[in-house]
Amino acid sequence: MFQNDAFRALDRQECLRLLAKVPVGRVVYTRQALPAVLPINFSLDTDASVLLCTSPDSDLVRAIDGVVVAFEADEFDAATRSGWSVVVTGRATVVTDPAEQERLSQAGPISWMPLRDAVFVRIESEMVTGRELRGTLGTL
Amino acid sequence: MFQNDAFRALDRQECLRLLAKVPVGRVVYTRQALPAVLPINFSLDTDASVLLCTSPDSDLVRAIDGVVVAFEADEFDAATRSGWSVVVTGRATVVTDPAEQERLSQAGPISWMPLRDAVFVRIESEMVTGRELRGTLGTL
Repeated sequence: MFQNDAFRALDRQECLRLLAKVPVGRVVYTRQALPAVLPINFSLDTDASVLLCTSPDSDLVRAIDGVVVAFEADEFDAATRSGWSVVVTGRATVVTDPAEQERLSQAGPISWMPLRDAVFVRIESEMVTGRELRGTLGTL
Repeated sequence: MFQNDAFRALDRQECLRLLAKVPVGRVVYTRQALPAVLPINFSLDTDASVLLCTSPDSDLVRAIDGVVVAFEADEFDAATRSGWSVVVTGRATVVTDPAEQERLSQAGPISWMPLRDAVFVRIESEMVTGRELRGTLGTL
């Protein structure tokens, strides 16, 4: 589909630079054998893994802990039909190490939802792909 | 996760009204046994199904024709930590009926990519769910 001049593949560094620009992405996983997707705010850790903060008893944690998921972020401009998207694919795991939890409680993402109790979930950036849509209208 | 005052579930009509406001959503499916996600511009048909326009020989068409997929759209405001997301879950099928193809070539979505050849893909809106994040900061 994307063997097309309108698209340019992005390298890993470009993908991570773009990911760091946006506050919200989408976790893509399977729930009860159906494709599922949940937008959530996130941050990037120093090793380029994606960090989420959510409730420990959430459906999301039950569904993705220990499982390979995709995490997508994008930005598009309808006026110029241009933009970019990045997908990180890797294993999601709840952070259980106390020292790591402590570090992330200072440096990790803060949930946009008020949570009674919070855990961090890490998605390893095992595979990072991205593409830029250059726009078929406008000046890009 | 969302049994939380910060969230409000949206009914089907609210979901469809919000979906109609945005030009781009994300198809969520499985590719080579991994979760996959692809942003794409879309429109809503008169029966509330999601319409895509893509290349007939695309990876996307190969992966989703005849398969249940999710289609997600959202809008968030980082300043107020508010926004909404909608997910349509249903079977995706390539439109093959000539009369329907003809109708959609007039009334359906136009691909943001230049395509040599185009097909329409319909995602039935069998299940439509949505939620509004009211914001834990700001005035919403």
